[in-house]
Amino acid sequence: MVHLGLEEARALALQCLLGNGFDQANADAVAGRMIQAEADLCHAHGLFRMEWYVAGVRSGRVNGAARPRVEPLAPAVIRVDGDGGYAPLGQQAAYRPLAECARKNGIAALAFVNMFHLAAMWPEVERLAQEGLCAFAFTASYPYVAPAGGTQPLYGTNPMGFAWPRKDALPLVFDQASSAMARGEIQIAARDGKTVPQTAGIGPGGEPTTDPNVVLAGAQLGFGGYKGASLAMMVELLAGPLIGEFLSFEAMDDDGGKGGPPKGGELILALDPARFGDPDGFLAHGEKLVTAILAQEGTRLPGARRLANREKTLETGIEIPQSLHRTILDLIGEGARPTRR
Amino acid sequence: MVHLGLEEARALALQCLLGNGFDQANADAVAGRMIQAEADLCHAHGLFRMEWYVAGVRSGRVNGAARPRVEPLAPAVIRVDGDGGYAPLGQQAAYRPLAECARKNGIAALAFVNMFHLAAMWPEVERLAQEGLCAFAFTASYPYVAPAGGTQPLYGTNPMGFAWPRKDALPLVFDQASSAMARGEIQIAARDGKTVPQTAGIGPGGEPTTDPNVVLAGAQLGFGGYKGASLAMMVELLAGPLIGEFLSFEAMDDDGGKGGPPKGGELILALDPARFGDPDGFLAHGEKLVTAILAQEGTRLPGARRLANREKTLETGIEIPQSLHRTILDLIGEGARPTRR
Repeated sequence: MVHLGLEEARALALQCLLGNGFDQANADAVAGRMIQAEADLCHAHGLFRMEWYVAGVRSGRVNGAARPRVEPLAPAVIRVDGDGGYAPLGQQAAYRPLAECARKNGIAALAFVNMFHLAAMWPEVERLAQEGLCAFAFTASYPYVAPAGGTQPLYGTNPMGFAWPRKDALPLVFDQASSAMARGEIQIAARDGKTVPQTAGIGPGGEPTTDPNVVLAGAQLGFGGYKGASLAMMVELLAGPLIGEFLSFEAMDDDGGKGGPPKGGELILALDPARFGDPDGFLAHGEKLVTAILAQEGTRLPGARRLANREKTLETGIEIPQSLHRTILDLIGEGARPTRR
Repeated sequence: MVHLGLEEARALALQCLLGNGFDQANADAVAGRMIQAEADLCHAHGLFRMEWYVAGVRSGRVNGAARPRVEPLAPAVIRVDGDGGYAPLGQQAAYRPLAECARKNGIAALAFVNMFHLAAMWPEVERLAQEGLCAFAFTASYPYVAPAGGTQPLYGTNPMGFAWPRKDALPLVFDQASSAMARGEIQIAARDGKTVPQTAGIGPGGEPTTDPNVVLAGAQLGFGGYKGASLAMMVELLAGPLIGEFLSFEAMDDDGGKGGPPKGGELILALDPARFGDPDGFLAHGEKLVTAILAQEGTRLPGARRLANREKTLETGIEIPQSLHRTILDLIGEGARPTRR
């Protein structure tokens, strides 16, 4: 493993992105998002994604110099056109107008289109909840999950994020896929020769299996069976037709199956609890639930592990595999070659 | 079984409610909701609930002559105070202002407080989607479900409803509990001496079990494990602290454990897709997803069975168990006695 301080890791990520077609604003936003994930020890959304981020821009599919445009669509609806770039910069541009719109109207929606979302979703809902808002986020991806009763992949793993503001504490946040397992977890099980639970997915003919390779060739399943599939369907509609963006299978068609980042949309909802009838009581009332959860042995709040990691890595820094460190250095080297300039 | 035409069933329900402390407006709304469930062959939310509805008003806990009040809280937030009555009348009062508010602002929220919700939630989201809106609904109940990692009941079975408007078809609707099984299903398994899946719940000490009686004495589990529990937690916050209403365990305290209907709140969100950036395309785009779902053998849309039942019962009417019919006649008889007048 290679040890890196958080600022060191950020500098490395920035150098890599800046050398590979990202301008300063986009590199800052994407590096910030990767390091934020590393700091919470969510490695799957951290520097591990560098290759994919870089490949998208190198291929010309993603705009490394995107200038997101914010425009109102209705009194409580804002659209951000991501200008074909990665999501983090457009999200940065949207936070303030979305929060102001929610405070003014009580609730507001963000239709974020024409962008590529490769990251976890907890950062965007957490950020809004840090401003005292309650927030939802939904995004689709590529078709991996079968509809209820079906056998062929149709829905993305379609995460939904949710955050609730807390009194004197970081927000209560969850960000969970509609599928029983994350695709990355199944890929890692395949790489390591391990099995997956039978609830994770089915083979190409719909047959039950615990072989991750068979699931990858077949279809993943929703968590809890048909109920998770319903949520995946809902996310398709919210991040797709509602805002005029791709369904997961349309994103796959658009990419031509080349394995580049999925183009698509994200819907974010922000609610201002101060406008919902209990402005002085809602925070303390939420804490009553938190207290009741933690009063039970064996429980912890969603996201608690991430927050504990965050506190730790601020001191200790992070570690990444030597192979990943090498890959990033190689990407920096390739980016510096004249032919790539 | 006793056969009843739908209008006959409605007249029976009305007579029973009117004779037991409901005024005309409240009786119409509650009877309408029960018959709507019967028509879709959702018996668990139909006349089966009559005893509970009546007991709530007879005990003085529920206001059978409620006059719900609608008031704006913010430009895109409406509150309905249910005046301590059952939910259906307040929902009726809210549909038009909520739909108008959503069309004006693009998105709107309804904070429905001070009421008793005993019904399924698909009718409220379906109704909004029939007006071209996309809708969510959330409500809590009594503590039945353990938090992730815990062993004691804390969350309600906390359903979430969702609806999407369709082109030339009834809306796409789902309404699903956050728990792996509905409480009624577990009670029916206990009554019939059957087992339940081990995912349904745990015993009082947190031990795994397939005995429904042990689950009823212990705690239910979220669907898909901790992910369903996260959704249940979310619903608690949305239908409770956000709008200034009870958490499930507070509703239980308020009832004093007497088994009366749970007092609480409901959050409904309505989004107008015509204001989200693809006003001319969203309906046809949603149909692309529907077509892709139905192209797979073995699939059906969420709610499709209900809609097929609805078409059928319009012709055939419904059947209810003789014992239930007898119970309703008895309630009518008791209501007619001078002491109850």
